[in-house]
Amino acid sequence: MRARDLLAAFPTVTADAPVIEAARLLAEQDLPGLIVVDDDGLPVSILAGTQVLALAVPRYCQDDPALARVVDEKHADAFLSSLAGRTVRQAVPPRPRELPVTDPDATVLELAALMARTRTPLVAVVEQGRLLGAVTLQALMDRVVPS
Amino acid sequence: MRARDLLAAFPTVTADAPVIEAARLLAEQDLPGLIVVDDDGLPVSILAGTQVLALAVPRYCQDDPALARVVDEKHADAFLSSLAGRTVRQAVPPRPRELPVTDPDATVLELAALMARTRTPLVAVVEQGRLLGAVTLQALMDRVVPS
Repeated sequence: MRARDLLAAFPTVTADAPVIEAARLLAEQDLPGLIVVDDDGLPVSILAGTQVLALAVPRYCQDDPALARVVDEKHADAFLSSLAGRTVRQAVPPRPRELPVTDPDATVLELAALMARTRTPLVAVVEQGRLLGAVTLQALMDRVVPS
Repeated sequence: MRARDLLAAFPTVTADAPVIEAARLLAEQDLPGLIVVDDDGLPVSILAGTQVLALAVPRYCQDDPALARVVDEKHADAFLSSLAGRTVRQAVPPRPRELPVTDPDATVLELAALMARTRTPLVAVVEQGRLLGAVTLQALMDRVVPS
């Protein structure tokens, strides 16, 4: 069993998309993460759900739990709507050491190891400069765990 | 909106449970992660799905992508079944700096920041020495992202 047997079409966002659109995609389609693509449709970043969520939380609240406690609900709403003007490009973290991107011949063990190393429940599959789709952690688990 | 309004019952595993049981729970119930509890039912570890997956991949395959490529399917099966004798305790990583555990009064921003910092799409909610349930990233996103 290889990546080609496990992959499925997966929605993408461009780096120029509004952050709020990325968050909406994640929420509505119940996705484990997002694939951010360049103008050629190739992955420039793969974000785990927790990283997309981080885009919606001000930096100072991520660092200081006490501050996040005292911010009341109205303020929280304000933060979320203040995202309206920001794009994914502005919010994506600096390029990590390794992106969870592989080719269709990747083995089950490679996929699992890649997800574990990058802590991303989503691997993009690229062949000859074209994004074929993605393998999700759930798709992988469903196939490899004996029921 | 606070953690108490977003939490739901969530299955747990004990540290003595076989790793394969933990993997099966994750796969069958489509969970974003697992709550590992002690004998008193209190969380000792919260594992993201990618961390549970890591339990099923031999260390040398996680570190060396080239090795994972050459391991063929039969060997992969052997690795998975070789887990049969291992317990969650043996596989859980050393205690991290911070566990995604909070109390029922945590705000939406606190929950989001905690998930982002710990990169775990799951926060356990504890009150007076009792596990009340968990807030998942999806439950949080569904409530805070305007549709």
